[in-house]
Amino acid sequence: MKVSGKHYKTVWFDSDRNTVCMIDQTKLPFSFEIIELKHHSDTAKAIKNMLVRGAGAIGATAGFAMAQAFVEARESEDGNYVEAARELIEATRPTAVNLFYATNKVYTSGQESVDKAIEMAYQVAADDESDSQKIGEYGNELLKDKCRVLTHCNAGWLAFVDYGTALSPIYKADEAGKDPFVFVDETRPRGQGARLTAWELQQAGIRHKIIADNAAAFYMQKGEIDIVITGADRIAANGDTANKIGTLEKAILAKEFGIPFYIAAPFSTIDFDSPSGNVFNIEERSDDELLYHEGPDEEGVIRKIRMASPDSEGLNPAFDVTPAKYIAGIITERGIIKTEDLLKNK
Amino acid sequence: MKVSGKHYKTVWFDSDRNTVCMIDQTKLPFSFEIIELKHHSDTAKAIKNMLVRGAGAIGATAGFAMAQAFVEARESEDGNYVEAARELIEATRPTAVNLFYATNKVYTSGQESVDKAIEMAYQVAADDESDSQKIGEYGNELLKDKCRVLTHCNAGWLAFVDYGTALSPIYKADEAGKDPFVFVDETRPRGQGARLTAWELQQAGIRHKIIADNAAAFYMQKGEIDIVITGADRIAANGDTANKIGTLEKAILAKEFGIPFYIAAPFSTIDFDSPSGNVFNIEERSDDELLYHEGPDEEGVIRKIRMASPDSEGLNPAFDVTPAKYIAGIITERGIIKTEDLLKNK
Repeated sequence: MKVSGKHYKTVWFDSDRNTVCMIDQTKLPFSFEIIELKHHSDTAKAIKNMLVRGAGAIGATAGFAMAQAFVEARESEDGNYVEAARELIEATRPTAVNLFYATNKVYTSGQESVDKAIEMAYQVAADDESDSQKIGEYGNELLKDKCRVLTHCNAGWLAFVDYGTALSPIYKADEAGKDPFVFVDETRPRGQGARLTAWELQQAGIRHKIIADNAAAFYMQKGEIDIVITGADRIAANGDTANKIGTLEKAILAKEFGIPFYIAAPFSTIDFDSPSGNVFNIEERSDDELLYHEGPDEEGVIRKIRMASPDSEGLNPAFDVTPAKYIAGIITERGIIKTEDLLKNK
Repeated sequence: MKVSGKHYKTVWFDSDRNTVCMIDQTKLPFSFEIIELKHHSDTAKAIKNMLVRGAGAIGATAGFAMAQAFVEARESEDGNYVEAARELIEATRPTAVNLFYATNKVYTSGQESVDKAIEMAYQVAADDESDSQKIGEYGNELLKDKCRVLTHCNAGWLAFVDYGTALSPIYKADEAGKDPFVFVDETRPRGQGARLTAWELQQAGIRHKIIADNAAAFYMQKGEIDIVITGADRIAANGDTANKIGTLEKAILAKEFGIPFYIAAPFSTIDFDSPSGNVFNIEERSDDELLYHEGPDEEGVIRKIRMASPDSEGLNPAFDVTPAKYIAGIITERGIIKTEDLLKNK
């Protein structure tokens, strides 16, 4: 998508220099910076520190990191170099199934040749991009003229290589002249909605307002929300969906008010090895994310402030699991699938 | 309640100097400051600017401001001085029924004499305090040993003259040796939970953790929340309750998980002139509260930072209305009343 008129992808690979390039999303929306990662361990660190985030973008980045490791292994005497790299990459974000999908694909291709590993890494990223486009086209069918959509967190193009999932139908609806309006959940603690989703929609010229996560039910009760669409980090075989903390709340509220709640995600997000969401390992992150926040002061200097009482502590689960019963369907690149039909489409 | 070992009330009146004194809650929890308001218009401004907040504290403060106006009127040639003052005071927070209750009581007493106005202002504050104590005693009956309570916003002693409503049962449970644990909703956008409720509980030595508003359903789903108690800004005759934005979300989630949801509020919060919550006037506040936040940086300097994408706007409803069907009961100084029985207890 475009940033100040120029087209960018979230992450890309320069195989001539064995370098991964990405938009540093920790700097967004206040500063737009591209960083270059010249070693697979730097790329893994960027995933861990959330310079890149979102299911598809993490997957593509992990694939590129895996390809970097194959290139590096040529100069290493360590027979387990690639396996150790894979382990390091896979340890960065244990909830992100796309990460495991990508490392597995690239690792398997790399058994044939380093070139095949690189080729597969490019392929994983290209597939992500075309899947996002298809998700947008299917999802757009759910959106009527002047539709009012609630979304949580950021599952826009910044979360993928390009175009996104939850926001992709909105981009398609906008292109189709439907003039959509988006309620953007702030998405505490990290504020990906207020920061990234709002920034994306602003760049695209789509009508939107940021709301506190607390305000979604207020607008649902007033009849001002027509549909809820969020992304997913991992979907179990029965449709239970792990996504950013707070997604479960929105799903329950939507059900209570009779508003359809959809998950938009590439098919690769479905983890058929997990029969239900009960087996998902939920990442518990540092309470600093909740207790402190960074942003520019009036002079534009980035400051970190304390958000909470000085001597109190917090709990910070990063994800929750929305049971399939709250989900009207999964918008995938293969079409919109009801949760009970996921296994049939395996 | 105690602050660093010394007993304080939220607001008090020094009638000898016709001065209202209060804890400046906009400075909490980072700095503890008492301010003195020597004119009813200053006191009204303090209510409007939320130096004092919370149903009971606003009521007591409004009563004191009304008494100040009666004293000032002695030296004024304006025959409508007190009426103009009343209008000014009542315009500060239109959702707070306790405010109207207090100004009405003091205004009526003032028709007899200025001394009677002062006496009634003291009485309103004293009643608030004893009501809070009784609410705590009734509410404590709902709390079992080691109970895990979720609360939203701040309805502790800082929201009243002393002791509070939603937190009062927790203080009583703690005194009774039940060792309660409190999940403290951050309560965006202003963060009264993370800032004030956490600070109160810390001062009282009660176990608690701050959570993002998004995380309540996560802990409900895990079976770690036994009961939800919040305060109220206004309760309709049918039990519909206006309270801080996000209360409706917690009530719906509690119902979904079979967790009892209680409102704790003095009986005066019930507005029998409002048959249901549909007639409540919901205050829409500046989106700056959502888009910016203040807190101390690493050197302790209070900074205001941007929380959201630079060019996006927000929507900021301050309250929502929780329909009576989600409320297990109202904990009042007269006992715990089911919403359908409110009119019987009028």
